Amino acid sequence: MISQQLIQVDTRGRGTYDLSSDVQSAVQASGIVTGICHLFIRHTSASLMICENADPAVMRDLESFMSRQAPDGDPMFTHTAEGPDDMPSHVRSILTQSDLNIPIQDGRCALGTWQGIYLWEHRLAPHQRKVVLTIQGE
Amino acid sequence: MISQQLIQVDTRGRGTYDLSSDVQSAVQASGIVTGICHLFIRHTSASLMICENADPAVMRDLESFMSRQAPDGDPMFTHTAEGPDDMPSHVRSILTQSDLNIPIQDGRCALGTWQGIYLWEHRLAPHQRKVVLTIQGE
Amino acid sequence: MISQQLIQVDTRGRGTYDLSSDVQSAVQASGIVTGICHLFIRHTSASLMICENADPAVMRDLESFMSRQAPDGDPMFTHTAEGPDDMPSHVRSILTQSDLNIPIQDGRCALGTWQGIYLWEHRLAPHQRKVVLTIQGE
Repeated sequence: MISQQLIQVDTRGRGTYDLSSDVQSAVQASGIVTGICHLFIRHTSASLMICENADPAVMRDLESFMSRQAPDGDPMFTHTAEGPDDMPSHVRSILTQSDLNIPIQDGRCALGTWQGIYLWEHRLAPHQRKVVLTIQGE
Repeated sequence: MISQQLIQVDTRGRGTYDLSSDVQSAVQASGIVTGICHLFIRHTSASLMICENADPAVMRDLESFMSRQAPDGDPMFTHTAEGPDDMPSHVRSILTQSDLNIPIQDGRCALGTWQGIYLWEHRLAPHQRKVVLTIQGE
Repeated sequence: MISQQLIQVDTRGRGTYDLSSDVQSAVQASGIVTGICHLFIRHTSASLMICENADPAVMRDLESFMSRQAPDGDPMFTHTAEGPDDMPSHVRSILTQSDLNIPIQDGRCALGTWQGIYLWEHRLAPHQRKVVLTIQGE
């Protein structure tokens, strides 16, 4: 059995957006008990991530880390057509994930206690992001 | 056809643990000839990786690399409740993989000659880690 | 339904190689309308990536970024048997992807407008690279 749908996320600019409950709801609605839930983001300046879901400081520290790795306006970058956050957003995307697979057990995503599913918007400005959800199994 | 099971890994602290033979055994036991083997780690301070399987220096160099990228005790990090290796473990996790998919060909994971499947424990202390294995195919 | 095939890429050394049209052709030939297309690279010094497909400067900037993160000949590295680009290639590989999953919608990979599928050769010398393509769905 296979079902596919779109999750649309209107971001308010750079930061993380928790998709966990949207994904869990879609998995439960699919009726699939054992299988795989696949997420795919159709963009190259926002990405997906499984990360700690309890302390907001983790997300702030991840932003600090990425800002040190690939600072906005880094003079090394030449792809700057859309501004100082353009190329750093592509770098952040390739260092994280464009797609995620999560096992479905007993009709739910088998996330660990401290795991959440996040969309990470890397651009400073708000964007409308599309995530394709494909649920496969029995 | 789909089968699911748990691999439990008792780590002795930071370092890599080779899961290749456990995964190959599970695939062979499943009876699936053509398909996909999926691994998912239910933690955010340990991760999965496909890497060179011959020279132990590779793993030492990867540890050096990650220690330079996200040093334990880095004053930039504020999420330090569980110690100086807490936030660096989350960073190392998001830079590597929470899930892996490996093709099954002729009843075996079609790894290249030099590829191994590793769990990477990022915390300094020993932990019990859970990896969900989902095998799908025909 | 499941189909599997090999894509072989003869690289001319370090750089990115666009696999998008090869993958789209294979998906269309499979006759699968809804599903998942999986790519797996059987090497640990070349990797896979979904990235911006329009401006060649993006690829140049990604090379610059990786060269700063893990410079060839970095004295930190001890795994140097195959030369100064040996260990940096493994590092670049673990920071990007060994496998990718792309949703199939209406018989095509549902890539975003600006997304391409790339093999990233990290070694300086030309290599013959093998990518296993597994297409699953209905």
